[in-house]
Amino acid sequence: MAARPNAAIHSPTSPLARRREEMSDLNLRIPGPVPLPEDVLEVGGRQMINHRGPEFADIINRMTTNFKTVLGTQGRAYFLTASGTGSMEAAIVNTLSPGDRVLSISIGSFGNRFGDIAEAYGVEVTRIEFEWGKAADPERVREEIRSMQECAAVVVTHNESSTGVMNPIDDLSRVIHDESDALVLVDAVSSAAGVPLPMDDWGLDVVGTASQKSWVAPPGIAMVAMSDRAWKAHENSKIPKYYFDIDQYEKFLQMGQPPFTPALSIIYALDHSLQAIIDEGIEEVLIRHAARAQQTRDGAKRIGLELFPDQSIASDTVTAIRVPDDIDGKVLVSHARDVYNVELGGGQEKLAGKIIRIGHMGWVLPEHIDESIDAVEKTLADLRA
Amino acid sequence: MAARPNAAIHSPTSPLARRREEMSDLNLRIPGPVPLPEDVLEVGGRQMINHRGPEFADIINRMTTNFKTVLGTQGRAYFLTASGTGSMEAAIVNTLSPGDRVLSISIGSFGNRFGDIAEAYGVEVTRIEFEWGKAADPERVREEIRSMQECAAVVVTHNESSTGVMNPIDDLSRVIHDESDALVLVDAVSSAAGVPLPMDDWGLDVVGTASQKSWVAPPGIAMVAMSDRAWKAHENSKIPKYYFDIDQYEKFLQMGQPPFTPALSIIYALDHSLQAIIDEGIEEVLIRHAARAQQTRDGAKRIGLELFPDQSIASDTVTAIRVPDDIDGKVLVSHARDVYNVELGGGQEKLAGKIIRIGHMGWVLPEHIDESIDAVEKTLADLRA
Repeated sequence: MAARPNAAIHSPTSPLARRREEMSDLNLRIPGPVPLPEDVLEVGGRQMINHRGPEFADIINRMTTNFKTVLGTQGRAYFLTASGTGSMEAAIVNTLSPGDRVLSISIGSFGNRFGDIAEAYGVEVTRIEFEWGKAADPERVREEIRSMQECAAVVVTHNESSTGVMNPIDDLSRVIHDESDALVLVDAVSSAAGVPLPMDDWGLDVVGTASQKSWVAPPGIAMVAMSDRAWKAHENSKIPKYYFDIDQYEKFLQMGQPPFTPALSIIYALDHSLQAIIDEGIEEVLIRHAARAQQTRDGAKRIGLELFPDQSIASDTVTAIRVPDDIDGKVLVSHARDVYNVELGGGQEKLAGKIIRIGHMGWVLPEHIDESIDAVEKTLADLRA
Repeated sequence: MAARPNAAIHSPTSPLARRREEMSDLNLRIPGPVPLPEDVLEVGGRQMINHRGPEFADIINRMTTNFKTVLGTQGRAYFLTASGTGSMEAAIVNTLSPGDRVLSISIGSFGNRFGDIAEAYGVEVTRIEFEWGKAADPERVREEIRSMQECAAVVVTHNESSTGVMNPIDDLSRVIHDESDALVLVDAVSSAAGVPLPMDDWGLDVVGTASQKSWVAPPGIAMVAMSDRAWKAHENSKIPKYYFDIDQYEKFLQMGQPPFTPALSIIYALDHSLQAIIDEGIEEVLIRHAARAQQTRDGAKRIGLELFPDQSIASDTVTAIRVPDDIDGKVLVSHARDVYNVELGGGQEKLAGKIIRIGHMGWVLPEHIDESIDAVEKTLADLRA
């Protein structure tokens, strides 16, 4: 995806820019929840309706169509009231059985989590862990699959927001399908709608994502898309489940209903934002994300900082930047928030204090990024003064 | 609880009445999601914040305290991003192990669901089902527990919203504790905050409820309270779990954080409404619910209709009314909505078309009920004309 600027969106009179007028002063740049433009907040504040009535049916049918369009899939799609982790759990409990052998590819904390969820449900997990800051190597994955006696599924993170690295999910999927019949289960929580992810073209079997990332809605709705292969696997899946049992979602979707009372406010907002993505054009949305990512990386370099991952694998939804050796990253984050009103992401687990992260998914204006880079630059000067 | 009117709340200048000004025309009288006053909608439309920052910690700590105060418990409490069914699933997966014997007491469709969830997780479920429209008989429950070789838990619905019947949960709990060491797991989704439910005094071990009922918030947050006994049982529980694993919620709550990105908008609204309950006074809130319930029952009788359950066991959060033999209940519901702007609940499963239900939990003014009764009366006249 070329990182060319988009004049229409950059213009201060564009709809995207005008949406900023009511924003609070804080520039929230954690990698989700993303800050929301006023129109999305307003739609999310609408009155409750009967979730078993015709108005809800219209909403859920439109959302399903739009979500599938964005992902480029002819498969099935469901909206669950849950955090993004719920979409990862749904991917596992609906396609696997206890004792199944699964390969978990991890390049960071969310990759580890996906493996942990599988293990919690009695799946036999073989783990390949790549160094934090690196992407998964398809040839290493090929070797590992060849060495496994059997492999029911591979679980893998598309965009590892803990390290700011994007996995080559297309290459990984190709290798997995070359070498096995394994299902490809993808945690796309922080990638989908921000970077290209043509689900069917890339042969992905389950894609899980969440409303509070590039989808520009509040957290609370986990989104799950399933290929026909995944649906067939689900019919034989023996992991115990109830709330996340996709059977119930499918059965009720036929009636334009949810099986359980859904988070209506988030549904309203997500429906609105899904339609905005379709209206803006998916290609345009992806170009805009790439441009904002490039702006962030360029800005970091301009103020003398080093990207944590190599630029070639750097995420287009969140940028991880090394904290200079003489600076405590935790102090940097709190100073930028307290003094400059920019809320950065810190490092997690083994990266705590060592990196900062700037989220640029969803609704992001060029000045959001400029302000963030400025705040980092000024904070470094303050801390070194 | 005496059903005496409360002058302060009835007054057209009361805060409760003033909250109506911005309501849409539709009078939403399904038993949840409940309609929300403007201030709750407004709070729910606030901008996103960092869910791992100090502002969120203040919110979650205040909510936890207020929720425990309303339930009268010294135990633990958690907020999960899920539908009410998630609270029932959390009750089961956190306290039981596959093969455990459990007694399921059912008086309607939600009672059946609680047993179904236990069964889905490999628990051996013995079911007592009472006729729809009746409450559970504590002496029948006593006999059943005596006849069981062992009983790890009893799962029971407090308020069965499918039939408008409230179970005598205090008597049931006493009998269960008299006869066994079983945990008492209560589905209080449609009862808590609307009817008395002093959790510790009544010896309840897990109470599950949900934001969109008497708590006056949008759907999306499941609430779970656990006694010390339940917490000890949880340490030995072997049902596989991840998203609903209460261990993670407890660990993160110590840091004022959620384990997974929560539905912030619903959290904002629920925090606001929990504080409003505390400020109004729990006793006053319960008195108001009882008054509105009595108003509904009196209204139904005044227009010549018969309550579905006996008045002595009728719910104070939702009233089920028999549809006259010459009328199709489904037509009644759609006519009342289309012509009179009142959205009633219909009958579910075996009661489809045979009853209508009027919800009166949460934020309900006397005129909401009067309008509903009027709409039913006029609809009956229209259908008979």
